[in-house]
Amino acid sequence: MNKRLTWLPFLTEDIPASLVTPEQIARFELEQALPKLAPGKTAQLTIVDAMEEGCTIQQHGDVLSISGGKVGVLYGAYKLLMSLATGHPLPEGDQQPRYGLRMLNCWDNASGDIERGYSGRSLFFENGKFDYDPARMRQLGRMLASVGLNVMCINNVNVRYPADQLIESWLPELAELAAIFRPFGVKLMVSIDYSAPMRHGVPTADPLDKQVQAWWTKQAEIVYQAVPDLAGFLVKADSEGRPGPFTYGRNHAEGANMLARALKPFGGKLVWRCFVYNCRQDWRDTTTDRPKAAYEHYAYLDGQFEDNVILQIKNGPFDFQVREPVSPLLYAMPKTNLAMEFQLAQEYTGQQVDIYAMPPMWREVYDDMPADKVMSIAAVTNLGRDENYTGHPFAAVNLFGYGLFAWDPDLQPEKIIRLWTRLTYGMDQLSEDTLVNLLMGSRRTYEKYTAPLGLCWMVSPNHHYGPSPSGYEYQAWGTYHKADRDAVGIDRTASGTGYLLQYPEEFQKLYGTPETCPDLLKLFFHRLRYDYVMSDGRTMIQRIYDDHFEGLEETRTMAETLKALPLPSPDKEEALERMERQLVNAREWCDITNTFFRRYSGIEDAHGRTIYR
Amino acid sequence: MNKRLTWLPFLTEDIPASLVTPEQIARFELEQALPKLAPGKTAQLTIVDAMEEGCTIQQHGDVLSISGGKVGVLYGAYKLLMSLATGHPLPEGDQQPRYGLRMLNCWDNASGDIERGYSGRSLFFENGKFDYDPARMRQLGRMLASVGLNVMCINNVNVRYPADQLIESWLPELAELAAIFRPFGVKLMVSIDYSAPMRHGVPTADPLDKQVQAWWTKQAEIVYQAVPDLAGFLVKADSEGRPGPFTYGRNHAEGANMLARALKPFGGKLVWRCFVYNCRQDWRDTTTDRPKAAYEHYAYLDGQFEDNVILQIKNGPFDFQVREPVSPLLYAMPKTNLAMEFQLAQEYTGQQVDIYAMPPMWREVYDDMPADKVMSIAAVTNLGRDENYTGHPFAAVNLFGYGLFAWDPDLQPEKIIRLWTRLTYGMDQLSEDTLVNLLMGSRRTYEKYTAPLGLCWMVSPNHHYGPSPSGYEYQAWGTYHKADRDAVGIDRTASGTGYLLQYPEEFQKLYGTPETCPDLLKLFFHRLRYDYVMSDGRTMIQRIYDDHFEGLEETRTMAETLKALPLPSPDKEEALERMERQLVNAREWCDITNTFFRRYSGIEDAHGRTIYR
Repeated sequence: MNKRLTWLPFLTEDIPASLVTPEQIARFELEQALPKLAPGKTAQLTIVDAMEEGCTIQQHGDVLSISGGKVGVLYGAYKLLMSLATGHPLPEGDQQPRYGLRMLNCWDNASGDIERGYSGRSLFFENGKFDYDPARMRQLGRMLASVGLNVMCINNVNVRYPADQLIESWLPELAELAAIFRPFGVKLMVSIDYSAPMRHGVPTADPLDKQVQAWWTKQAEIVYQAVPDLAGFLVKADSEGRPGPFTYGRNHAEGANMLARALKPFGGKLVWRCFVYNCRQDWRDTTTDRPKAAYEHYAYLDGQFEDNVILQIKNGPFDFQVREPVSPLLYAMPKTNLAMEFQLAQEYTGQQVDIYAMPPMWREVYDDMPADKVMSIAAVTNLGRDENYTGHPFAAVNLFGYGLFAWDPDLQPEKIIRLWTRLTYGMDQLSEDTLVNLLMGSRRTYEKYTAPLGLCWMVSPNHHYGPSPSGYEYQAWGTYHKADRDAVGIDRTASGTGYLLQYPEEFQKLYGTPETCPDLLKLFFHRLRYDYVMSDGRTMIQRIYDDHFEGLEETRTMAETLKALPLPSPDKEEALERMERQLVNAREWCDITNTFFRRYSGIEDAHGRTIYR
Repeated sequence: MNKRLTWLPFLTEDIPASLVTPEQIARFELEQALPKLAPGKTAQLTIVDAMEEGCTIQQHGDVLSISGGKVGVLYGAYKLLMSLATGHPLPEGDQQPRYGLRMLNCWDNASGDIERGYSGRSLFFENGKFDYDPARMRQLGRMLASVGLNVMCINNVNVRYPADQLIESWLPELAELAAIFRPFGVKLMVSIDYSAPMRHGVPTADPLDKQVQAWWTKQAEIVYQAVPDLAGFLVKADSEGRPGPFTYGRNHAEGANMLARALKPFGGKLVWRCFVYNCRQDWRDTTTDRPKAAYEHYAYLDGQFEDNVILQIKNGPFDFQVREPVSPLLYAMPKTNLAMEFQLAQEYTGQQVDIYAMPPMWREVYDDMPADKVMSIAAVTNLGRDENYTGHPFAAVNLFGYGLFAWDPDLQPEKIIRLWTRLTYGMDQLSEDTLVNLLMGSRRTYEKYTAPLGLCWMVSPNHHYGPSPSGYEYQAWGTYHKADRDAVGIDRTASGTGYLLQYPEEFQKLYGTPETCPDLLKLFFHRLRYDYVMSDGRTMIQRIYDDHFEGLEETRTMAETLKALPLPSPDKEEALERMERQLVNAREWCDITNTFFRRYSGIEDAHGRTIYR
């Protein structure tokens, strides 16, 4: 069994299959780790059912006592061990997670492929069936519990045969897997196919049709008989070719509520993704603006959803680009349960080749979002069957960090990253500082060489790695920058597509003029001439050139830094091998983007650096 | 069994498996067709071995007599029947093919996929093994013989497991297939994997290594024992990731001769493709120019090849683009056996969705090539398992026409197209003229909306259908136009990449200045400003706009024409369904290309037609 455990290197023993409650696992973990981390100390567990996921940790002499709910004590045990391992003081007071559902969405197909997976094949499936190592599942359960994640949707939201069998003929196997994760406080969730009834003799999937309702009601009963604590269903409907209620002239409240009612008797949640837009847009059509789509589809339905429906909304209005403004839909549905959706899988952000630590980005999103309106959180995982789980060993910081952020979004990004670094590598202070700084800056560096000033989608179509500045320009995906010889960007203010009008007034003011709009979102909201003068006196085109040259230079510095770091094997070799590829990628991005804009603008770099013809 | 037989509708009877000589087949075809085509007439066959593939046809009263070699009488029978079916006079005098080897290259994989196939799956393979309908093979043999084709390479030049078994464990099956085609005068050829010896314990594939030579010598013996009349081997070496002699520091004469010597005792030919270039080019590198590659790799080797080596050279220096100048390599190797390579598969020319009749293009190539230097001819097929063999029913004109061109390249394109039209549809004169005109103009129309003035590669990367004007711009394939705000095109003259210097002097003069260079190749050889004034007074950019608008208009006219034609079912439905797609494609090409150039140039259409922003 794989022994690499990234941020939990002190837990070297496999978890025995015989342990079936969180409390048993907590004791097992404490017993193996305490003698190493705090020799002479002992732990005491007290279960207080009412505390649920919460816990408190106290020290009295050599006795470390953890009180908490049934799962809370397990979270407490990991918090205690991580504090001891890092030399940090014990967390004070009552520990409660901010978000009730702290979800991972796996985009694993039954074939064993992972959609947008960069860490090897599926941990759960292969060859059209369940195929996993139970010991590794327990190790994964431990990883998730150690950072407080409590729901895992195990299959791709694009549900294709035979993954539809998860809620049908595969229920016994689903129940087995759920039993493995249950002691870790992790409930399974499944993505379902909205048209499922039609494979069973129902002539429609119309949510208002009685037969359809009856089919789902009955099916939910069957599912919950097999897995009584299933977290619920996840649905991608009417999006990118998926079936959904639009086919029947129904709106998404009607569509979601029908399923939610079927799940309600069993306490199940119906998580409904708001990633709905026209993916067959005509590029000639300038009135349709894809970022407007989610708001247009959902905002008017506020208050119409069942109370066990959760709308899952991507952090930005596009699709996990390096930088997007926060989704305005988050502000538009005060009477609806909302979940934020992040993407740990680095689809557009370097594919676990390029280093890209996400906590600083989440922090920015969190600062911009209505804190009290979002009650759940989800993230597309970056997990796979690779020995290190995440492809790039540093990509584990995103899984780890996501768990901590989901528990307490007020945690500072640097604190999260430092914690992971210390737990994982336990290096000297200088090396730790160096790696923390490298990770902290990695997203901005990546942004500099890939995504100038909020311009999105200059990435290679389909696989989404590397530059293709016009790759999406005439496609049907609604993702255009419309660069020409004079200007670039889309005017999304009231004088343009009107997207900005979906925001509360403070955002409208901030983003409404090029002058007030933050530099890094200027070209998201505005179409600007290349000679537009930025607040620091540089022209927009010069700023683009500067950012790209800087991004490349910073990557080169990062590579040198990495070489000097005392990282253990094989992490160091893995990181260095990927860094070679990142250097190639950064150079391609830098040179191609600069050449692209020079060909349009005819303007040379003010500092005479090489921009190819 | 499939009964659709495009240009041979009068041959409705399946060919019995019991017929095993060309003469028997000739008699069978004449017996079934003569009563329909020439009631009361009889045919007399006389075999004159020395005439080989040649034949003569004479009429004495009601007796039609055909003299010819063993295969010649079969060709004569088809020529006779086609003359009768079209009402044309019988061919006069001795009929002899111009090219000795008239080859088809099938890019069929053992999986059943066809690389660049647009007519369904492979006729020969499925699921990693031979899988064909013998009756349909005989029908295919009849089609090929009817137009005089005599060699068919059955597997993809990119040879992957298990297709390498064709010359190993699959020899019995290969022999069976060869036996089916033998009575039709069609010899099989196979593509081989240059590194084959290494799968058999030989530590290298170095052509100068004794063990390697011994392995191929022995293997050729084994192969020819199974298929004594195999035409030979086809090789793609050192190209797009294929193994080859470069790996061992050997040149391509050394590489090819080693295989040729192994084949020579059995009369086999070694056909060696000259499609060799750097497919990992850095787009920043302006000294490398892909069209120069074939000449650079081969010209200096003239005279060094064994006499059973045939170098197969694509018609243009790139890769089957809509318009390229003739390959200069054809002029550079007077002491080497050369074959011209065309592509019937419409990889870059509409993929058997858009109508694209090729005979006019071949005629242009023929006019530009050294007629006496090229002794063989090959074409990548457009064949597949579709009921009509070629996807678009009209695409059959390219297979038919290629056969006739390979027999007699002096035949006028219109004559070829009219012959196919009359044989296939036998419509009234006006309808026939209409379809002939439509086909005759189809390539120029396609060129207008896709490939302005010799600019190549504005096609979508990978699948090669539809526009992506910058899709190849920063890729590693060496295919750039370098459009910027001022100009577009690559200077390939002496002052540029020097590609033009590979040509004989007359071409250098013709193409050497923008003024003398034909309009339709201007941007292939020159980098021109958008305001460059063409010989007719239009600016270059206006010419591009005009061509694109015209191409779209002509397609719309073509669609109307098609609707009115009295074509039989299902050809009509198939053609109309594809025309719907061609209309969409033409509109995308027209609008995207015009917008692309308008964004760069800032110049509006002089006639105020809509160019989108």
